[in-house]
Amino acid sequence: MPVKVAINGYGTIGKRVADAVSAQDDMVVVGVTKTRPTYEAFHAIKKGYPFYAALTEKIADLKKAGLEVQGDLKDLLREADVVVDCSPGKVGKENLEKYRRAGVKAIFQGGEKHELVEASFNSLANYHESLGKDYVRVVSCNTTGLCRTLYPLYRDFEIEEVNAVMVRRSADPRDSKRGPINAIEPVLKVPSHHGPDVNTIIPDLPINTMAVKVPTTLMHLHCVVVKFKKAPGVEDVLKVWRKTPRVRLVRGERGFKSTAQIMEFARDDGRLRSDLYEIVVWEDGTHIKGDNLYYSQAIHQEADVVPENIDAIRAMFKLETDNMKSIEKTNKALGIE
Amino acid sequence: MPVKVAINGYGTIGKRVADAVSAQDDMVVVGVTKTRPTYEAFHAIKKGYPFYAALTEKIADLKKAGLEVQGDLKDLLREADVVVDCSPGKVGKENLEKYRRAGVKAIFQGGEKHELVEASFNSLANYHESLGKDYVRVVSCNTTGLCRTLYPLYRDFEIEEVNAVMVRRSADPRDSKRGPINAIEPVLKVPSHHGPDVNTIIPDLPINTMAVKVPTTLMHLHCVVVKFKKAPGVEDVLKVWRKTPRVRLVRGERGFKSTAQIMEFARDDGRLRSDLYEIVVWEDGTHIKGDNLYYSQAIHQEADVVPENIDAIRAMFKLETDNMKSIEKTNKALGIE
Amino acid sequence: MPVKVAINGYGTIGKRVADAVSAQDDMVVVGVTKTRPTYEAFHAIKKGYPFYAALTEKIADLKKAGLEVQGDLKDLLREADVVVDCSPGKVGKENLEKYRRAGVKAIFQGGEKHELVEASFNSLANYHESLGKDYVRVVSCNTTGLCRTLYPLYRDFEIEEVNAVMVRRSADPRDSKRGPINAIEPVLKVPSHHGPDVNTIIPDLPINTMAVKVPTTLMHLHCVVVKFKKAPGVEDVLKVWRKTPRVRLVRGERGFKSTAQIMEFARDDGRLRSDLYEIVVWEDGTHIKGDNLYYSQAIHQEADVVPENIDAIRAMFKLETDNMKSIEKTNKALGIE
Amino acid sequence: MPVKVAINGYGTIGKRVADAVSAQDDMVVVGVTKTRPTYEAFHAIKKGYPFYAALTEKIADLKKAGLEVQGDLKDLLREADVVVDCSPGKVGKENLEKYRRAGVKAIFQGGEKHELVEASFNSLANYHESLGKDYVRVVSCNTTGLCRTLYPLYRDFEIEEVNAVMVRRSADPRDSKRGPINAIEPVLKVPSHHGPDVNTIIPDLPINTMAVKVPTTLMHLHCVVVKFKKAPGVEDVLKVWRKTPRVRLVRGERGFKSTAQIMEFARDDGRLRSDLYEIVVWEDGTHIKGDNLYYSQAIHQEADVVPENIDAIRAMFKLETDNMKSIEKTNKALGIE
Repeated sequence: MPVKVAINGYGTIGKRVADAVSAQDDMVVVGVTKTRPTYEAFHAIKKGYPFYAALTEKIADLKKAGLEVQGDLKDLLREADVVVDCSPGKVGKENLEKYRRAGVKAIFQGGEKHELVEASFNSLANYHESLGKDYVRVVSCNTTGLCRTLYPLYRDFEIEEVNAVMVRRSADPRDSKRGPINAIEPVLKVPSHHGPDVNTIIPDLPINTMAVKVPTTLMHLHCVVVKFKKAPGVEDVLKVWRKTPRVRLVRGERGFKSTAQIMEFARDDGRLRSDLYEIVVWEDGTHIKGDNLYYSQAIHQEADVVPENIDAIRAMFKLETDNMKSIEKTNKALGIE
Repeated sequence: MPVKVAINGYGTIGKRVADAVSAQDDMVVVGVTKTRPTYEAFHAIKKGYPFYAALTEKIADLKKAGLEVQGDLKDLLREADVVVDCSPGKVGKENLEKYRRAGVKAIFQGGEKHELVEASFNSLANYHESLGKDYVRVVSCNTTGLCRTLYPLYRDFEIEEVNAVMVRRSADPRDSKRGPINAIEPVLKVPSHHGPDVNTIIPDLPINTMAVKVPTTLMHLHCVVVKFKKAPGVEDVLKVWRKTPRVRLVRGERGFKSTAQIMEFARDDGRLRSDLYEIVVWEDGTHIKGDNLYYSQAIHQEADVVPENIDAIRAMFKLETDNMKSIEKTNKALGIE
Repeated sequence: MPVKVAINGYGTIGKRVADAVSAQDDMVVVGVTKTRPTYEAFHAIKKGYPFYAALTEKIADLKKAGLEVQGDLKDLLREADVVVDCSPGKVGKENLEKYRRAGVKAIFQGGEKHELVEASFNSLANYHESLGKDYVRVVSCNTTGLCRTLYPLYRDFEIEEVNAVMVRRSADPRDSKRGPINAIEPVLKVPSHHGPDVNTIIPDLPINTMAVKVPTTLMHLHCVVVKFKKAPGVEDVLKVWRKTPRVRLVRGERGFKSTAQIMEFARDDGRLRSDLYEIVVWEDGTHIKGDNLYYSQAIHQEADVVPENIDAIRAMFKLETDNMKSIEKTNKALGIE
Repeated sequence: MPVKVAINGYGTIGKRVADAVSAQDDMVVVGVTKTRPTYEAFHAIKKGYPFYAALTEKIADLKKAGLEVQGDLKDLLREADVVVDCSPGKVGKENLEKYRRAGVKAIFQGGEKHELVEASFNSLANYHESLGKDYVRVVSCNTTGLCRTLYPLYRDFEIEEVNAVMVRRSADPRDSKRGPINAIEPVLKVPSHHGPDVNTIIPDLPINTMAVKVPTTLMHLHCVVVKFKKAPGVEDVLKVWRKTPRVRLVRGERGFKSTAQIMEFARDDGRLRSDLYEIVVWEDGTHIKGDNLYYSQAIHQEADVVPENIDAIRAMFKLETDNMKSIEKTNKALGIE
């Protein structure tokens, strides 16, 4: 019998996880929640997802707007084996209590703290730590991106130190409120939260991160410097990444000049929502100088954690104990080559 | 036997027309052309489109990059009944000569002049003028948008005068070269070319247009003022548009605050490339004051002309003589409700 | 003895009004207020403006940050003849009560409602209505811009109807929070508040306005259509504007392609903060078609109301009863040609 | 007698150098050149700069537009002791020949190659190398920024390695042509040209740089990681920078959240064109982790090289042999604290 999955918060990540769950054969969406009667709420129902009010007091509003509401979060949890928490703010702690009381497992997203859960999760690097666990956190889009390309280097070579600068998009494409319109905003804390967050997945990788926000909506871009004890050749590094799932190499000479052309490729490729689940690394932007490796990677912030949520469910229910098998299964269902 | 269609210029419009032709049962893509070996060229071949060099002198380059090249434009034209010219610049005149010599019909896009062809084309307003014609021009995305919402008002009510301001996106999402990054640029010519262009479709509609370019990539937005001899009610107008194909009404109160949420809806809806072929009008942004109708509409510049190209082919080959039947057939194939 | 002016709210408008008051010989700044210890607070003190806490409860914070605080708003009002309210939100009503109790006159900005005050103010169009008044509102940057170019046309010709579209900047240059980054957002209410606001200055001008927000910080841009009973010639219109204070004509052929070059001109010209107090109209973007006049104008939203605040003070204290004399005096002091 | 300075190319940098030269007592502007009759050309004449055509064949056009033209570049060079080449493209080589033939010294900007000249120049780091030289290159805005903060660290501590990421503005504020509007574009070459360029000034500093372009016009922002042999304390580093001319420390807690507030500060401060000649470093963004120093700095690309051009003239004519005295003199004249 498939695992019954509830999605609490049908927004940017929630709606993608719902569709990704639906594409699997070992799990099923039993309902999604939302607080406001937007087009996304109507679309959830059109897609056939049982619709619940995230907050009890919103039921009336939602019904009045013409939505068929099945009940509130409590009602939904009764139907579920696991809830994927995609609520916006940092309300995880409060929500965890609700989930615990309802006796369902829960997955949180990267906005919540590591301390809240039993294990932070990345499919490639530490799948096994979440086997059978009840409360798991899929790390953020940026941390997922760093783990995808750094973990195999950490595994195959000796890393002395990593320094990475995250050039972050400031708002998602669907958000017309947030800026800046014309400024660059540095994160003054160093390391930014990304470095320590990578260490919740790969504890002994020496990494420091800096971050800036820039006025774009499409993707994050990371500039990464890896200092090795003894540097491998560029081709050795590329060979490792070519074998790494959910990492995709592109070449600038093929017209991939910026994040714009990468997202255009995703549109052409016909993925749902024009999403790109993979981390994209420029082959011809990868260089070794002395013992340092330099590379640039692009992260589709809306999408890269979606397959990780699927794998996390599999780990928590021991549907699959081998991470590579879960990754392969998820990838196939989502059309990731 | 299906009409054999060549696409000259596999870029923003060309690749969409190719996919739209492929979705029909009465026409087929016999080949596409390109000049440079970008990811889009490789993708065309991956999709199974026979690939040709737009320029003979580019064959070597394209082959060297690893592309399987079937020949040049001349070779392609030999296989085709009609060519859809989606070449970038204003090289239509020069191209027309080539097409004429090859004895194929040709469709041009809105960048070319009306004088070049036998008829300018809009599916709803003047389909019949292109019946059996050899050289037809599908008007630009903005002109198509204006015709879609203005023609039914022109048909059903008495219009004294239209004034419209086109707030235009400055570059397409795949273009990372063009700006401005932070400025508004007015078109100093009044009327901008859009007004006279509408008159190539609806000759006796009194219309003047102004235009400005703004730093966004998603959609154009039109602010339209229609002065009627005697104004209908708002509900009368909405009723007309509800029955008009390729016009979609949305409400701001459902979260459609800006073009961002409209494009997000298209992504959620699962259209190829997250495209929106329809013109979107805000129901709650439509108002009558005195004899004037005020409304705002959003235009997905990459997509709205795509179904018109399909209908134009049908008209030129008299595959269908009734425009509403062609529209319905195209819409069904493309998933337009 | 010069009029003693307090500035309540030393932000985008407040700091400019303070500097403009300081540039006059018949008024003087007796103090400015702020709630937070930002660089702007430190700068106010560096400039020599007595500094007060806008809110009593903020005094401690401000002092702790190292600012020399003279007291709170109540203390400041005791020193003043008039307060220019540049507080951010719509707290005018509440503030008015404080000003009334302190027995000082007050000027509000365009964010407040007309109903709050005795008269709304534009230097050119209705200076005399504010003569001797206690509570006056300087209309918003957009409304001021419309009044500057429309009033002289209204005065010299017969206008049947005005339709204007405001293409608005979404955030000021100093604001890195607000978006959108990549969207166009229409105001769904028609008329937008600008049309009725013009009527608080020119009551019987038939005007309707639409508005959209776009991702730029520099300036607003208006596309205006004026329908005359009988249209004058373009040169007649330009002649009127050439004689109108605070209206500046530019030509696209001189490199003024967009708002970017207009603001660059202001920088070159050496105005304080690179401000442009004048409304800028493109001469070669001004056209007559039938009985309609079409023109585009650019509004520096941070600056255009600043000289109006100065003139409003003069009117309220009858320092000058002739508006043209006050305008001339203010212009001279601010370097407006 | 003051040194007679010609400016070849009155654009973004040229017009600033002209005004900065005019502010000194030991040099004078004898003329400026331009090719097109834009508002900047008219403004040069309004300011009193003798105006010449950069290209002989443009004289007629410029005169026809109403500009008083004194002759062409050759005529101007006859009046000059030194020419500051601010021509746009990479035409330095060609121009150098003209300057040589005319027997005038020449300063080039960072767009030209080091190999073209006798010395690359930074006021603080290598002033003495340009003493008495004929052909000198002031390095680019980004390289100047790196040298300003890195040279004193290099001088006072032992640096093992520097890695820096340049997050670059894509177009200047006056440029409404260039994009991207919504993308991040990495420089695929590593090191980007900035690292080697720093080595034309500080030859033995081990530095690697990566670069990305982002959709903003205001400033560049650098994220810098300095690995020391043995790290000093943060306070030691800040103490060094506090004593370094043309480096300005700011604090995020004072409202300096992004480049937007930094440029706003420059506007408030009343500098001509709202320019900021100094490199801005966030005090509370400066951190030591292990042996690494992390800091973020903002570069006003239009302005930071302007005082360096002045100092370069002084060095080339030995008007001052002590760099600190020239820096002090220039700073005083330009209002740099």
